[in-house]
Amino acid sequence: MSSEEKFKEISPADFFYRNRDIAGFSNPVRALYTAVRELVENSLDACEARGILPDIILFLTIEGQADSERNIVRIRIADNGGGIPPEHIPNAFGKILFGSKYTLIQSRGTFGLGGKMAYLYGQITTNNPLEITVGYHKRIYFFKIMIDIKKNAPIVLERQEKNNPKKWNGTIVSFTLEGDYFRAFPKILEYIKLSALVAPYANITLVDAYGRLIRFSRSTTQMPNPPKETLPHPHGVDVEMVKRLAEENRKRTLISFLTRSFHRVGKETASKILEQLNLSPNTLVGELGLDEIVKLTQTLKNYDGFLPPDASILSPIGETLLKEGIKKELEPEVLAVESRKPQAYSGHPFIVEVGIAYGGKITPPEDGNAIIYRYANRIPLLYDEANDVSYKVVNKLMNWKRYKIDPRTDPVRIIVHICSTKIPYKTVGKEYVADRPEIEREILNGLRNVSREISFYLSRKKSMEREKRRLDVYRKYLPMIIRFAEEAAGGKVKVRESSVKALLSLMDKYRVLHEETS
Amino acid sequence: MSSEEKFKEISPADFFYRNRDIAGFSNPVRALYTAVRELVENSLDACEARGILPDIILFLTIEGQADSERNIVRIRIADNGGGIPPEHIPNAFGKILFGSKYTLIQSRGTFGLGGKMAYLYGQITTNNPLEITVGYHKRIYFFKIMIDIKKNAPIVLERQEKNNPKKWNGTIVSFTLEGDYFRAFPKILEYIKLSALVAPYANITLVDAYGRLIRFSRSTTQMPNPPKETLPHPHGVDVEMVKRLAEENRKRTLISFLTRSFHRVGKETASKILEQLNLSPNTLVGELGLDEIVKLTQTLKNYDGFLPPDASILSPIGETLLKEGIKKELEPEVLAVESRKPQAYSGHPFIVEVGIAYGGKITPPEDGNAIIYRYANRIPLLYDEANDVSYKVVNKLMNWKRYKIDPRTDPVRIIVHICSTKIPYKTVGKEYVADRPEIEREILNGLRNVSREISFYLSRKKSMEREKRRLDVYRKYLPMIIRFAEEAAGGKVKVRESSVKALLSLMDKYRVLHEETS
Repeated sequence: MSSEEKFKEISPADFFYRNRDIAGFSNPVRALYTAVRELVENSLDACEARGILPDIILFLTIEGQADSERNIVRIRIADNGGGIPPEHIPNAFGKILFGSKYTLIQSRGTFGLGGKMAYLYGQITTNNPLEITVGYHKRIYFFKIMIDIKKNAPIVLERQEKNNPKKWNGTIVSFTLEGDYFRAFPKILEYIKLSALVAPYANITLVDAYGRLIRFSRSTTQMPNPPKETLPHPHGVDVEMVKRLAEENRKRTLISFLTRSFHRVGKETASKILEQLNLSPNTLVGELGLDEIVKLTQTLKNYDGFLPPDASILSPIGETLLKEGIKKELEPEVLAVESRKPQAYSGHPFIVEVGIAYGGKITPPEDGNAIIYRYANRIPLLYDEANDVSYKVVNKLMNWKRYKIDPRTDPVRIIVHICSTKIPYKTVGKEYVADRPEIEREILNGLRNVSREISFYLSRKKSMEREKRRLDVYRKYLPMIIRFAEEAAGGKVKVRESSVKALLSLMDKYRVLHEETS
Repeated sequence: MSSEEKFKEISPADFFYRNRDIAGFSNPVRALYTAVRELVENSLDACEARGILPDIILFLTIEGQADSERNIVRIRIADNGGGIPPEHIPNAFGKILFGSKYTLIQSRGTFGLGGKMAYLYGQITTNNPLEITVGYHKRIYFFKIMIDIKKNAPIVLERQEKNNPKKWNGTIVSFTLEGDYFRAFPKILEYIKLSALVAPYANITLVDAYGRLIRFSRSTTQMPNPPKETLPHPHGVDVEMVKRLAEENRKRTLISFLTRSFHRVGKETASKILEQLNLSPNTLVGELGLDEIVKLTQTLKNYDGFLPPDASILSPIGETLLKEGIKKELEPEVLAVESRKPQAYSGHPFIVEVGIAYGGKITPPEDGNAIIYRYANRIPLLYDEANDVSYKVVNKLMNWKRYKIDPRTDPVRIIVHICSTKIPYKTVGKEYVADRPEIEREILNGLRNVSREISFYLSRKKSMEREKRRLDVYRKYLPMIIRFAEEAAGGKVKVRESSVKALLSLMDKYRVLHEETS
């Protein structure tokens, strides 16, 4: 044995510091894009969770040059999302794996990590503190903090407090990081445009490094219902989860434990399960041995009498808002959307929403690849498309010929939104969704339906054009035919000009009528 | 404000428990495959780090059925890697973010996470303890442990100790997990076969669930030099790293700090840098302000007078061993390999090794896609190929026509190995390597060279075949020509049969000679 290994423990902050690539901070372009994206998502989440119409302002400024491809960029983002209780501010911004997203609720954030990774990245590249201003109830708080990466703890450098006479409730975050501003900016703009598409109730303002103001204004004040927290569905549990729940409910009876700690378990079902396990409904949870917990878990997972998870806790965009957003941002000639019925995979409820927009201001794809706008819990996903379940459905499973649409060459945009309490991302960078068969099927069926609608519109449009062409032929030749007829009749008959016109206008009317009813 | 957010902190174990998808534990097939893979890697690493010829035995048994697609599988793996100091055993197996891989050294593991994720996954799906047997110096230790996920701490259920009369040094790990054995097994087999290809000095034995023994025997006892730990190269530092190093070296002078804490910084260079910063070489590190540390970091990152990182700390497979492995596992007609010169990206040294094997027992790809065996620090990468830098080089950048090889239809296997102290993986699942331009270029140049070699062999072979065909024609017609000539001479001349034979054999000889020298 030539060498001994050195063992040591590292903090979660240290882990992500060492492995920032996996959270999307892999190069100066991507790092800046990811930072902006995570902050915009946090701001939108903060507003929507409280049913507040979002008003978000994002400033990007270049403060210096690190090297030839790295600018020192300041990101400053302000939202009206209701702020954060002051006692939580240092940890919420300066401690990895601390946050408000560790519950079973649909939100853009799932790892509770992205914003903090952005500050961490800012700190290790530029070493400036993070400045946070929070309006919370009657006070305004101001903090300057840095992260002690080795300890995974915030260092508060400055703290101030003052009155909040205008009762502004919200959060402003400002920090610097190294990034390639000029190459990241188009991606950032696209990201915000696509965010606006699915959040037509939000005002998002971007002030770029030249001081230009780009504004995505709300076109509606209607908001989707906010998502709600939920209990775990029995099909999604594992031994660890049941063990934890049992520890928290040691003094409950089994029957009350099952009905109160799990989603979709009624008294009757609970009794059946306990009977199957030879357990009395009145036994206390604390009396269960580990073996019994394991058996209970297995029974819960495999019992097929539960209703699927209730999706009313989810917050889909809805067909109205989705249409509104697409119209506003894409201005197509025609569009079709479908918000699918809720489904579940491994105990997690999800809803798929799809849309197809065609023509109008939409141009055909330049590179012969179908353009898919992918969303997960309303986050636009812009990278690693080829791994995504939507890509697979659009490019491999859909039989587009059937609908006489070719998204590779026609002026088409495809929109796919998946919302769930648990999006099956394959990476911390949240860029693509795994191809769970349940999700795949929903996207496919949704796309088939909206494609049928578009295809129907297109074929009707074509037949109307044919109709119109035919009418134009009549319009052109009818007077000639009449003249010939008059001549053939030896001038004995004379058709009045006005009756020809009347005939043509009758045909026109018939055509319009036909268009409207078909 | 309708609702208040709930803030809480979770442990690293809890984070990975909640997000096991991102470490490759996304479904029953992948979970079992990933678990086996992580354990085999740990065993190989343990041996190679100490220069021990690996002897690894892996048992897979089915202990039960969880549901229709999930078996309860026991994984038992034994290695001769030298064991682990007993005081570290509980944490090394039962505490996430604790380990021996948090240093700057090339190893298969980079996140220090995989093995523990496998145990964690086993525990949450089957709730059995992990059994560990370690032979370490004069004693053998046996532990049964589970992980307290909420606290991220090991729970030692049992501990035994006894003498080690045969001085066996190594580790045996045994635990159960849910997995789809039958669909995972082919992937596992492929993984081990490909591991054997780049480690021809290892014995790897697999005993499958039917008790069948599959053995990959070593064909050489030569091993690559073990990797060495290294200091950080100045081009790869950030403020956080320099701050940490400065804290550890407060009492050193700046000149000694720079030369002793960084790779490739000699006295002369250090003086130049300090001059540039207006700092005296004898100032103590502890006297530096944060601003000065930031400036020092920037200067180190941008100074272009450093030598590239020394790659002698890396452990490439080497051309001899790579050839050996390819011959043993693929049995091709011809092969060419190249171990490229060391290069660096952002301060991390790396070496690319490529190979092409052609013909023999190799069959053409069945689906018309080039078959690439990808390796990173000797780990075969089997998933998500389309995102990998090698895939890009093979399918988009290489101009195969130039070499008259078509890897999509010819009997070809392409081998690409990247070794580095820091492989730029994009995910914790370690499945694909980012397309850093420096790495891309090395792969491309390497493949061009080995393709040229193969192409040269093939064209020579073709010309020899042509030659042989020509000779065969002679062989057939020469006697006839001679007979005609004899007849034409009116029977006056008679060529002896033996001299015709002599002529033909001379031509044969010439052909063989030509083959050998060309």
